[in-house]
Amino acid sequence: MFFSFDGIDGVGKTTQIERFCAWLAAQGHTVVTCRDPGSTPLGETLRDVLLHSGDDRPIGRRAEMLLYMAARAQLVDDVIRPALDAGSVVVSDRYLLANLAYQAHAGGLPREAVASVGAVATDGVAPAAVMLLDLSPAAAERRMGDERDRMERSGAEYRERLRQGFLEEARKAPDVIHVVDASPPVDEVHARIVEIAQRVLDHAAAR
Amino acid sequence: MFFSFDGIDGVGKTTQIERFCAWLAAQGHTVVTCRDPGSTPLGETLRDVLLHSGDDRPIGRRAEMLLYMAARAQLVDDVIRPALDAGSVVVSDRYLLANLAYQAHAGGLPREAVASVGAVATDGVAPAAVMLLDLSPAAAERRMGDERDRMERSGAEYRERLRQGFLEEARKAPDVIHVVDASPPVDEVHARIVEIAQRVLDHAAAR
Repeated sequence: MFFSFDGIDGVGKTTQIERFCAWLAAQGHTVVTCRDPGSTPLGETLRDVLLHSGDDRPIGRRAEMLLYMAARAQLVDDVIRPALDAGSVVVSDRYLLANLAYQAHAGGLPREAVASVGAVATDGVAPAAVMLLDLSPAAAERRMGDERDRMERSGAEYRERLRQGFLEEARKAPDVIHVVDASPPVDEVHARIVEIAQRVLDHAAAR
Repeated sequence: MFFSFDGIDGVGKTTQIERFCAWLAAQGHTVVTCRDPGSTPLGETLRDVLLHSGDDRPIGRRAEMLLYMAARAQLVDDVIRPALDAGSVVVSDRYLLANLAYQAHAGGLPREAVASVGAVATDGVAPAAVMLLDLSPAAAERRMGDERDRMERSGAEYRERLRQGFLEEARKAPDVIHVVDASPPVDEVHARIVEIAQRVLDHAAAR
């Protein structure tokens, strides 16, 4: 069983992933967590390349998208598929949905280009459920605190386009992408995530 | 006008590219040369990542292919397209054809997967002519000299599969991929390349 968490920065992904993994472990599941990009030597190298590209050596939009995809292909081969084959529950901090929102909807690449490369990169390994934490960009920004500079750099209009991109993808795949209102207190958001996950786990167990 | 050179290691690409670029310059063309992967800060970083992945941290087949594609996307955006827009002749040491031969035909990835990612990575920027230097793996190996270890590592069967992959692609696109027998002396091979290039340049000028 494979879960991923996504959404704009500042929605509380990290906190909710920690709580969710603790809940899964308490239910007796073996849990493997990862972050995309990352969690493999290649993925962490590429994560550095992506984060450290400054204005002096900018990375183009297609190259950026392809780097995310390369990191994801390695993550699937080395972490996600082996963990799923071993019967573990995998929880990933971001996955393909992030590229659709960031590079296609907000970044301007054709959606079908990102989706077709994504099909090759993931080799068909897709989450059973995506928890899309949703929050207005203004509220997310207030939560960012110390990291606020980073958000301000990207601009309010961009962040709203990003949020709408995530929501549009959720409308296209409502059975897989679950929109979770991230504005209530942490416990309430966690309870909602557990409710969705329990339904997905029960459904899988019944098959 | 965009030319690329390809073929298995040891066919004499480097020598022929140098000779060809000197000929182009003597004809009055402004020549921009590049190597794929490489020729951009990102491309050279990824080239290092690809060449330094050892047995201790192997890169998967899909991730490897996607890294080549990311390097190529950046090369197109930063080098090839600007040079073509400026009226220069671009000569690239390898291009998309290499991925079709190495990762698909010889490496086992589905050809259509490589081709569809390639369409996104190149954004439609394709060579007017590809010079495919063709030589038997045994003859290519004899030419490698000091680099012979590298060839021996990959095995005779693999190199033959690679050569046949290149030739199969040439049969699919005979108007673009020109098979050049690389077994004659350097001057003869160069003369054959110039003959093909002259025809392509004349044809472009006539349009």
